Amino acid sequence: MSEAAIELARRSRGLAEADFTEELRIPSVGTLSRHREDCRQNAQWLLERFQRMGMDASLHEYGSGHPTVQAEWLAAPGRPLLTIYGHYDVQPPDPLQEWISGPFEPAIRDGSIYARGACDNKGQHLSSLKAAEYAFATGGPALNLRFLVEGEEEGGGEVLPHLLKTEAERLRSDFVFIHDGTLLQLLTGLRGNLYTEIEVTGAAIDLHSGAFGGLAPNPFNTLALILAGLKDRTGRVLIPGFYDAVKDPSPEELASWSTLPITEEMLLQLTGAPALEGEPGYSLLERNFTRPTLDVHGVMGGFTDEGSKTVIPARAAAKVSMRLVPDQDPFVILEALRRQAETLATPGTRVVVKQVGEVAWPILLDSQHVGIGAASRAFEAAFGQAPFLVRAGYSIPVVSDFAANLPDSKIFVSGFSGEDDGAHSPNERMVLDNFHRGTEMVLHLFDELAEA
Amino acid sequence: MSEAAIELARRSRGLAEADFTEELRIPSVGTLSRHREDCRQNAQWLLERFQRMGMDASLHEYGSGHPTVQAEWLAAPGRPLLTIYGHYDVQPPDPLQEWISGPFEPAIRDGSIYARGACDNKGQHLSSLKAAEYAFATGGPALNLRFLVEGEEEGGGEVLPHLLKTEAERLRSDFVFIHDGTLLQLLTGLRGNLYTEIEVTGAAIDLHSGAFGGLAPNPFNTLALILAGLKDRTGRVLIPGFYDAVKDPSPEELASWSTLPITEEMLLQLTGAPALEGEPGYSLLERNFTRPTLDVHGVMGGFTDEGSKTVIPARAAAKVSMRLVPDQDPFVILEALRRQAETLATPGTRVVVKQVGEVAWPILLDSQHVGIGAASRAFEAAFGQAPFLVRAGYSIPVVSDFAANLPDSKIFVSGFSGEDDGAHSPNERMVLDNFHRGTEMVLHLFDELAEA
Repeated sequence: MSEAAIELARRSRGLAEADFTEELRIPSVGTLSRHREDCRQNAQWLLERFQRMGMDASLHEYGSGHPTVQAEWLAAPGRPLLTIYGHYDVQPPDPLQEWISGPFEPAIRDGSIYARGACDNKGQHLSSLKAAEYAFATGGPALNLRFLVEGEEEGGGEVLPHLLKTEAERLRSDFVFIHDGTLLQLLTGLRGNLYTEIEVTGAAIDLHSGAFGGLAPNPFNTLALILAGLKDRTGRVLIPGFYDAVKDPSPEELASWSTLPITEEMLLQLTGAPALEGEPGYSLLERNFTRPTLDVHGVMGGFTDEGSKTVIPARAAAKVSMRLVPDQDPFVILEALRRQAETLATPGTRVVVKQVGEVAWPILLDSQHVGIGAASRAFEAAFGQAPFLVRAGYSIPVVSDFAANLPDSKIFVSGFSGEDDGAHSPNERMVLDNFHRGTEMVLHLFDELAEA
Repeated sequence: MSEAAIELARRSRGLAEADFTEELRIPSVGTLSRHREDCRQNAQWLLERFQRMGMDASLHEYGSGHPTVQAEWLAAPGRPLLTIYGHYDVQPPDPLQEWISGPFEPAIRDGSIYARGACDNKGQHLSSLKAAEYAFATGGPALNLRFLVEGEEEGGGEVLPHLLKTEAERLRSDFVFIHDGTLLQLLTGLRGNLYTEIEVTGAAIDLHSGAFGGLAPNPFNTLALILAGLKDRTGRVLIPGFYDAVKDPSPEELASWSTLPITEEMLLQLTGAPALEGEPGYSLLERNFTRPTLDVHGVMGGFTDEGSKTVIPARAAAKVSMRLVPDQDPFVILEALRRQAETLATPGTRVVVKQVGEVAWPILLDSQHVGIGAASRAFEAAFGQAPFLVRAGYSIPVVSDFAANLPDSKIFVSGFSGEDDGAHSPNERMVLDNFHRGTEMVLHLFDELAEA
């Protein structure tokens, strides 16, 4: 069956790239309220494409969130039901000055398309959407199909979690393909994420550092003391109790990871950093897969314009997130962080730790189910190579939502984005060949799962 | 002679306030290039006022700096020459949202005028300008007079220093009144200032904290370690050698300061901070007058918009300044800071420490000269109270420039700005009664110095 669809896919690459460009032009930055209408426009754009291929498509709303696009085709009785997950929201594009071409003006260079969202996640869900389109144009897929493409992945939203929770029975699926992963990787676990803002206040008003330097507390200096007291210079987190619930990976996992072709040299070249940094005593992959981390993302307050201003500001705040691993509880960690920040605050300051967005729980997946084998064969057929079973250092909160609400579904997490495609960075891209082969992989996957 | 001028001053308070409002409307933010034309407009505004009263006024330019306004009247042969210094540039007004009325829309509330620059320094130089205007309108001042009003005080410029250096002989003065001080204070010393930017770079590109957390260096975490390693939680600076050249104040100074009506309670009320902070083992005034300090003013880089972005940025930088005291050498301290920052940087990062603007050297002034007595009597006549002899925690770089280039001049530093007038803060103000009495003080000063 897939042969005709694959042939159509190969003939339609130009049209697929035109569609890709069109979706990339929509600046659907989910976490910035000024892009609210752009997000809705992206949802509408997907809705129309699903409807055009004959799927039963609708937008699902909840509260003030961005809509989730649902598309269904349940006309293959007796065949399994595959649900494919993706997201149309993208990260903010800053720093803008580092983009070679505009983040929302897709440009093709050296076989890659560059734009915010290219690999995270438009190029991913669109390769699946295209696979469905070609399957419908050549007799229909060999299994039942559902898409759920949400608009709140980057910010931690509530629309899709609410839908999964309240309509779990209706949404039961045999397989769930979380299409937000890395090329030739099938994930057996993901780190969680806890995103916070640590705010330090001192005086009630901004003060002059000449008139008050040596007298008034400076929230920035105190914030630096707090941040320096959260992680030491070797990369070990200093929050008391932080590592208490951390579980070591199984010897089988460790053994299989040792075959992965990832070296310090590769990472140095990829990042351009003078040296890597991370918790001592653990391998590179352990540091990313099974060890929790803490990173500062930005610091607000005071004076950051050109030149000099000698202000002791009334407030300073930092965005700080922690990647968590099984069995750390994000809310236990949040309380431990609060206590540590309060311990480190100076007498002239007050500190408040706020959670930002929803937490992502760390998760371990079943790595033995039939979907894993099917996906491996589909990868081999499309890319000529079997995928690796790995964990992910990043978080896909929705994986936990699917696992919790659709406990009978066989979940697998993978995708077609390369590790050097710059997700969340300037000049994010998708290699077009991976995008096109990805569509073929999904067509093979339809066939494989139909028989699974 | 001053009686007629003082009477005119009292009759003209409404007109003086109208002029004050007019100058405050000019957004002459010297350190922001987008306000370049506003600075020139302010210089022109002053030039015209000096010319209108019959002074020989001109603009002095050098390089790309904002012009210095010079106004002279040397028609009192045999009488001393008084040079009055002020500056028309103002601090940036941010954070804008904390202003009750717009920073460049002067508003009078409860007897004070609120606007950026109200006390620092427009209300100050304008009270002197008005004194000159009234003196000329009532027979002319009893001494020779020169104004130098520059436009680069807040940023550390080069126009006035260059003028003082290259035309020192022409600018010789018997007295120099640095009109940029605090009400009822005559300064006998000022702290210096060294303003820097500490930039930390890690990877060559922004990275995703999921994919690279535990592997890549985070410049923010390293910057926090560096900042925390510059000043401890008690307020003591940790840069090796930082205190080596610091001189203790004389027993006479310490004794005279002990009579000053400044208490911890007052400062707590003024700042609204939960507690004061500063180097242990020193009195409040020592901590501000004779002990050096270090303050962080802002941190750049990464993600600071609403919501969350899980970025490990390629770079982070902090604005950090140090108030220095005699006999610290700013350039020795800059090198010591560089070494400390490099020592504290982590292996995955590189750190660069850049000087921002010009340094202000710490300075001790002669506190015995006849101008001090004259100014004290003028204060008593106008405000009913003699000023205190103190040092300043803040820096006025130009004091060193005058002292170095006009070594025969008797310098005194004072002004009419209250300590709670919010210089450099939102809702900066000038108490109008101080502004008007200030004009009378300057008229008395003309008479006192003419006989000195």
